[in-house]
Amino acid sequence: MAAQGLDALLLTTAADIFYVTGFLTRFWESPTRPWFVVVPAVGEPVAVIPTIGRDLMARTWLAGIRTWDAPQPDDDGVSLLAATLCDLVKDGGRIGIPMGPETQLRMPLADHARVAEGIGRRSFVDATEPLQRVREIKSEAEVAKIRECCDIAGRAFARVPEIVSAGQPLSAVFRAFQIALLEEGADWVSYLAGGAGPGGYGDVISPASDRPLMAGDVLMLDTGAVRHGYFCDFDRNFAIGHNDAAAHRAHAALHAATEAALGSIAPGMRARDAHRILLDSLLAAGATPLGGRFGHGLGIVLTEWPSLTDRDETPLSEGMVLTLEPGVEIAPGRIMVHEENIVLRAGGCELLSPRAPAELPVIGP
Amino acid sequence: MAAQGLDALLLTTAADIFYVTGFLTRFWESPTRPWFVVVPAVGEPVAVIPTIGRDLMARTWLAGIRTWDAPQPDDDGVSLLAATLCDLVKDGGRIGIPMGPETQLRMPLADHARVAEGIGRRSFVDATEPLQRVREIKSEAEVAKIRECCDIAGRAFARVPEIVSAGQPLSAVFRAFQIALLEEGADWVSYLAGGAGPGGYGDVISPASDRPLMAGDVLMLDTGAVRHGYFCDFDRNFAIGHNDAAAHRAHAALHAATEAALGSIAPGMRARDAHRILLDSLLAAGATPLGGRFGHGLGIVLTEWPSLTDRDETPLSEGMVLTLEPGVEIAPGRIMVHEENIVLRAGGCELLSPRAPAELPVIGP
Repeated sequence: MAAQGLDALLLTTAADIFYVTGFLTRFWESPTRPWFVVVPAVGEPVAVIPTIGRDLMARTWLAGIRTWDAPQPDDDGVSLLAATLCDLVKDGGRIGIPMGPETQLRMPLADHARVAEGIGRRSFVDATEPLQRVREIKSEAEVAKIRECCDIAGRAFARVPEIVSAGQPLSAVFRAFQIALLEEGADWVSYLAGGAGPGGYGDVISPASDRPLMAGDVLMLDTGAVRHGYFCDFDRNFAIGHNDAAAHRAHAALHAATEAALGSIAPGMRARDAHRILLDSLLAAGATPLGGRFGHGLGIVLTEWPSLTDRDETPLSEGMVLTLEPGVEIAPGRIMVHEENIVLRAGGCELLSPRAPAELPVIGP
Repeated sequence: MAAQGLDALLLTTAADIFYVTGFLTRFWESPTRPWFVVVPAVGEPVAVIPTIGRDLMARTWLAGIRTWDAPQPDDDGVSLLAATLCDLVKDGGRIGIPMGPETQLRMPLADHARVAEGIGRRSFVDATEPLQRVREIKSEAEVAKIRECCDIAGRAFARVPEIVSAGQPLSAVFRAFQIALLEEGADWVSYLAGGAGPGGYGDVISPASDRPLMAGDVLMLDTGAVRHGYFCDFDRNFAIGHNDAAAHRAHAALHAATEAALGSIAPGMRARDAHRILLDSLLAAGATPLGGRFGHGLGIVLTEWPSLTDRDETPLSEGMVLTLEPGVEIAPGRIMVHEENIVLRAGGCELLSPRAPAELPVIGP
């Protein structure tokens, strides 16, 4: 904040507020009420929040808590937030809000404009950079939480051959896998995607259809389970009944590309270097790489910066937690993706997810 | 849109885009990529989305789909969106964005400013009102989806006496109940809150602690499960071991207040009238009503407008789906809430959730 000349940060999202305060609740699912935390350059943070959150916020380390009785559409925290900013920030001061890539302002746009009017000669400036640079480096306590979450998902993935069989609708597979994640210790399952299709799947963002799994399908499950507010984000592929030769080759190419990345990504590289390592390995194997990114940051959100693309210049640093997520096209409309989670150490990658098997596992007879 | 003089709507959120297109994915959990749908006053909507979503969007009714290869932080859909708006909206035209209560702009603030610069003399204006007035009235197809979700949660709540017992940590109860919701047919569980404590609980937004349930506790579970993209949102209370007299009275007062509301809320009233009915009944029973709202809209988001507060003037109309959610303070720091889901018919309330029992149910010996 000092380097950016910021007199305060204004935080509005679940992730930024959890990061600073430890305030964790699923209540963010309701868009009704805005929540604010002001972090001054000097002095203690102050939460400006709906009354319904006072008790929970009082159990965090924050002492300064100001509340209003939300929802109150004619003044939903606007005047209280403006007054708080005027208290904590000097006249003419600069208040940072994340405005850049991957950020959102979680308050009504009209209220943001009213707060801007209510703070006199203080101004809002972009604070994406300082927040990203801090949040992208995980403490050992954070790494331990992500590792615990990866272990939970690893145990659930290990049970897939028990809970999945040919004939089962994909929707039932998705339910069974979410149940397995909860049974293995996930607090909740914020994200589950996947796909299934003959020799590969069509895309990785569709909800599950009721189409039954069939022999020759490749099934992929990709989960973002949550434990203590931290995510894992990795996937696994399975062949149903028998292992199609093209799918087998695709899995081998993805596994080898990930091995190459695990063995060579190190602090001091840039995000695009990690993309290049994965891409080169896929190309060397004769595979057809997917466009888009080959991994991203991970932590208190399912996906954090940076992105492993050919254009992301973010320096990779010790303590970053990343996903490695190469993907290939097996044939038109049939793809395969492969994902692991790592923490970057001084010496290179340390796996947080249990390593996927080298061979595409086959489920069933 | 015609009444508001809007030449187009710009939609950015999961809910608004699902409502207009049917595009349903859990991929929204990742904040990396913005997604846009432009709805012109005349002509067909156009989706302006990351390439990764093209196949899924192509399965909706939308024919116009323009994509870019996100993430691309230097131009993450900005120029494509601006060009699309210039194509679809006349010079000097008004483009509506929801800016009011309960809305958020799901794109980086800096990119919003760049789009505003890129659309010439076209301007962004608030479009909260027209979107809210349309979305708050549910079609019969929507009501059927919410009812199906309520039925799923009703079956899961009916199993609580089997899956919950004294000695069990609240965190294990939360996991078991989420599993029951999935087993009964929920696609996923976006929200689960609750609480447990001697004779009442402290708040309704905390995540589950590992404290074991004890005889004399009141346990509350409040779920927002999802089926086909639609939410239920109701809760149930249970006494553990035995039924504390004050908790019993609180439950009776809440049940009676809800009965009063079910029997009298009708189209033509305002949201504040529904609050008044619930409040008056609680006061007549000698209970201490909680502040805040006593219910809200429900549909493709866990909580939608209006709010049943003493100040919300929204007219209640046929086809609205609402929660009735009165709450009382039993003693300082001990509360109880009670929630049902209804659809408003010409003749009054029709329950969507199976009605809670009049007596607080007791679990265990």
